[in-house]
Amino acid sequence: MQRSHNCGQLTTESIGQTVILNGWVQTRRDLGGVLFIDLRDRSGIVQIVFNPDYSGEALQIADKTRSEYVIAVKGQVVKRDPETVNSNLPTGEIEVRVTDIEVLNAAKTPPFFIEDGVEVDESLRLKYRYLDLRRPEMQKTLLLRSKAAKIFRDFLDEEGFIDVETPILTKSSPEGARDYLVPSRVHEGEFFALPQSPQIYKQLLMVGGVERYYQIARCFRDEDLRADRQPEFTQVDIETSFLSQDELLGMMERLMQRLFKETVGVELALPFQRLTHAEAMGKYGSDKPDLRFGLELIEMNDIVAGSGVKVFASVIEKGGEVKCLNAKGCGTWTRKEIDDLGPYAARYGAKGLAWIQVKEGEFRGPIVKFFSEEEIAAVKERTGAEEGDLLLFSADNKKVVADVLGALRLKIGRQLGLIDDSVYKFAWVTDFPLLGYDEEQKRYVAEHHPFTRPREEDVALFDTDPGAIRAQAYDIVLNGYEVGGGSMRIYKRDVQEKMFDALSLSKEEVQDKFGYLLDAFEYGTPPHGGIAFGFDRLVMLLAGRTNLRETIAFPKTASATDLLMDAPSPVKDAQLDELHIRVAIKEKAKK
Amino acid sequence: MQRSHNCGQLTTESIGQTVILNGWVQTRRDLGGVLFIDLRDRSGIVQIVFNPDYSGEALQIADKTRSEYVIAVKGQVVKRDPETVNSNLPTGEIEVRVTDIEVLNAAKTPPFFIEDGVEVDESLRLKYRYLDLRRPEMQKTLLLRSKAAKIFRDFLDEEGFIDVETPILTKSSPEGARDYLVPSRVHEGEFFALPQSPQIYKQLLMVGGVERYYQIARCFRDEDLRADRQPEFTQVDIETSFLSQDELLGMMERLMQRLFKETVGVELALPFQRLTHAEAMGKYGSDKPDLRFGLELIEMNDIVAGSGVKVFASVIEKGGEVKCLNAKGCGTWTRKEIDDLGPYAARYGAKGLAWIQVKEGEFRGPIVKFFSEEEIAAVKERTGAEEGDLLLFSADNKKVVADVLGALRLKIGRQLGLIDDSVYKFAWVTDFPLLGYDEEQKRYVAEHHPFTRPREEDVALFDTDPGAIRAQAYDIVLNGYEVGGGSMRIYKRDVQEKMFDALSLSKEEVQDKFGYLLDAFEYGTPPHGGIAFGFDRLVMLLAGRTNLRETIAFPKTASATDLLMDAPSPVKDAQLDELHIRVAIKEKAKK
Repeated sequence: MQRSHNCGQLTTESIGQTVILNGWVQTRRDLGGVLFIDLRDRSGIVQIVFNPDYSGEALQIADKTRSEYVIAVKGQVVKRDPETVNSNLPTGEIEVRVTDIEVLNAAKTPPFFIEDGVEVDESLRLKYRYLDLRRPEMQKTLLLRSKAAKIFRDFLDEEGFIDVETPILTKSSPEGARDYLVPSRVHEGEFFALPQSPQIYKQLLMVGGVERYYQIARCFRDEDLRADRQPEFTQVDIETSFLSQDELLGMMERLMQRLFKETVGVELALPFQRLTHAEAMGKYGSDKPDLRFGLELIEMNDIVAGSGVKVFASVIEKGGEVKCLNAKGCGTWTRKEIDDLGPYAARYGAKGLAWIQVKEGEFRGPIVKFFSEEEIAAVKERTGAEEGDLLLFSADNKKVVADVLGALRLKIGRQLGLIDDSVYKFAWVTDFPLLGYDEEQKRYVAEHHPFTRPREEDVALFDTDPGAIRAQAYDIVLNGYEVGGGSMRIYKRDVQEKMFDALSLSKEEVQDKFGYLLDAFEYGTPPHGGIAFGFDRLVMLLAGRTNLRETIAFPKTASATDLLMDAPSPVKDAQLDELHIRVAIKEKAKK
Repeated sequence: MQRSHNCGQLTTESIGQTVILNGWVQTRRDLGGVLFIDLRDRSGIVQIVFNPDYSGEALQIADKTRSEYVIAVKGQVVKRDPETVNSNLPTGEIEVRVTDIEVLNAAKTPPFFIEDGVEVDESLRLKYRYLDLRRPEMQKTLLLRSKAAKIFRDFLDEEGFIDVETPILTKSSPEGARDYLVPSRVHEGEFFALPQSPQIYKQLLMVGGVERYYQIARCFRDEDLRADRQPEFTQVDIETSFLSQDELLGMMERLMQRLFKETVGVELALPFQRLTHAEAMGKYGSDKPDLRFGLELIEMNDIVAGSGVKVFASVIEKGGEVKCLNAKGCGTWTRKEIDDLGPYAARYGAKGLAWIQVKEGEFRGPIVKFFSEEEIAAVKERTGAEEGDLLLFSADNKKVVADVLGALRLKIGRQLGLIDDSVYKFAWVTDFPLLGYDEEQKRYVAEHHPFTRPREEDVALFDTDPGAIRAQAYDIVLNGYEVGGGSMRIYKRDVQEKMFDALSLSKEEVQDKFGYLLDAFEYGTPPHGGIAFGFDRLVMLLAGRTNLRETIAFPKTASATDLLMDAPSPVKDAQLDELHIRVAIKEKAKK
């Protein structure tokens, strides 16, 4: 009884054919002695019928099957009676009259129904992942993920990229934080680390003359887990030599265009919008702005500096800023509705949230009285405030203002229905700052990593204003998510030395942390740069899901546990002996 | 100076074009003020010329470059003078007259030449792997590996296989030997393990209705390293539901056919030869026979049992066997040459090695006198012995005879030049024994793994002679290497229980070791089976190499060390504290 057809494949064109199907019993209904079974395989569902008129003994056997039994059947495809056509099913116009059946395997009653939209606890789904995966939406997502990987590979292969596997047993990174460690049996007291990314290897491949490299690479980060992180994740890792940033970004846009066309059938317009980091932060309060809607942040410093609103004046005096969000149409909100924004804004660091309603032709709200008529007119003009609008003000340092209004922008955009979920809005955010000042360590730190190339025209700023140097670094954002990022890398020794100086690293530290890489860079390193896409997240967005776990066959929970395998787990002392380690649990206080 | 062409791409068709090339200085020669540089990139080498007549300042700049400098040049492609054509180079008929040059980066003198066939210590090559990778033969191998992976993927994709990623942070296997462990930060005192293979996950995917799965998967095994093992290795992992063994094997043959055609241009004839395990062991003394030559082992028990050679008679009496290898043409060997085979055979367990020379029309050698004339005639007929042949006899238990004569067969085959290195001779070895008797544990153990399906007609033997059960397990062998293997899996509960009984496992042990998998098997498991190819080894054979390290971009040494990164390495105590472990080095005696 080897399968001749897949269940979901049968159409009216198959009518008259004798077929053999293999699959799972989805549901069964007995109507007056005639047994109808929905048979499911990976391709879909088809109705098969057991009737005393033609099924003979097969009917008795079929009658003993239950949900999730695995069966093989042989029968003839026939047209359904018009009144029994099921237009919800692609195979709904036909059914299969079964003459032979073989029960390949029995099944216990599963702990939840094998169908889309089951409402069961996620931990139950994860424990029985092998049943969860049978649900059509999970099958579809796995298929989509496989297809997306194939499209990446095909495109990159056509562009001359070589798929190179880099080690998973590698060296602990200089800081070592968040590294998963692996004790060595052969080398007592020494450890491998799992890579947080193949960054160093891909740069070494460029030194090695590979010129165009890619890998769909597993990466590992032992961090406190949030809803959208996994201890192991997959990135599409790409590095090229001899390409400019513009050439690389253009190529990646074509890659995204192909990916979206061939998976979700959407034609993306090229080129993607490009914003500098400064623009993105200024207009959207985010380095990964959702550009499916407007609601831009508006600079107000010049207008409100002289107003009687003390907090505005004092913030501006201290070098901070005041910005406004015009929540169109929210002027009709009740006082309570407006006040409820306060705690939300506070989560993002706001100490307060000033607002003005435009109601019955005039500005209303607690701060209005501190404005002159000229100032009110200027605010009106700058914000385009109209009847029924709500102006929200944040006054603080740049970061807080961006965080607060950026978050409010998203919340209100969603609330007002400004976001079209069917739209995929890509953009590049470029010119990230190269260095950030760490107040605690009293020194500059690399925003991306210490091999990120500064913009040519900013190199002189190393001597005068390192914080103002823009990096040749870029993120690719989609609908408010960062789906990838990368940079051009430093390849000239003098620039690298300036960078290390700016980071206040001593020669010894440099040698200790990056010695072998710097050695490598001395032997004829080509100009190079690259990018990495967060594959799990891209698949999540393509699948229209909101949780990374839905895109991974066997994910871990938010507490980094594999519920199916029950991992991690204790191991035998003999195993630890072999690895020259011992468990050492500290008192809770020590944590 | 963005590249317009690749170096290796330029031919006489490019003559007259102005091109921009980016690459590395391979060699430079100054001939009477004219500078010739061989410029190398990933695609190949081309000669570029700096001449005072047309190069201007570029000549002075070029004169300062040294080997491995990275340069960009612009110039015109011209035909070489007939007397300077280099027929060793694909680009040897043309050269590029350079008008502009930019030095992209300088280079120190590399520790070895960047060219094929360098004779330097492998550890130096591994330490400077990024330079080693620049050598054309390494580039070619990386490209071949990438291409081979692509062919696997394309084929499997076309056959409806889904690429599913399975976890790398997983659970320690029941025995735990050879597992790499990863301490958990979140779960104190608990450990993940790196997978030795995705075996369990791929079976769960079949339970999950994925039907056809593949993955080019990284696997890990912490074992004593031999020349041809790596702590992390890559396998092409495949599993299917609803396919018979014959269908799967046929599909895999077509996959190999495509792989070899599209990489090395060899057309493999299908179907591949199939031998049972018993045949392979009997005829070739190996379960991975090199079938590029004959020299089969010949059974002699019936002929020699009654001879006066005591050791033959006594071995046969104890249930052992006597076999013969006819080393054609080696009858002319000196006594010393023959005696030298003794120590070699001893390495494989031989206690002695009897022999007969056919010289001047008669049998000669120490044992000849113990044979009757009839016996000599029978030996002659059975072995086809002719003038100039050498008959080698091994008498011992089956295993030793196979090991000894299998090894001698290979040695003599090589020595006699019977092996054609240009031939790829594939075969399937099938019907491996399901169980082997472990004398130490006094019980049967699974030869493959406990989920391997027995042949249908052998299931009854569970009750009478478990050791005689043949498994639906198969290896694919190529030129004496095992390049893959797999099995059909048990999917019926009653068979699985018989298997566990045969392994003398208690209910508790079964639950403890395989509980979650057995649970999974209860919910409607389809018939399934699969195979895994050793990707590193396949690439090694395709590339004509003899060392797995040559096929891996960043391999580890035989002592599991990464010489480039210097891993494994000690880590900070703070890191270990976070992971709740401590180093515990025992006195050497304890090891």
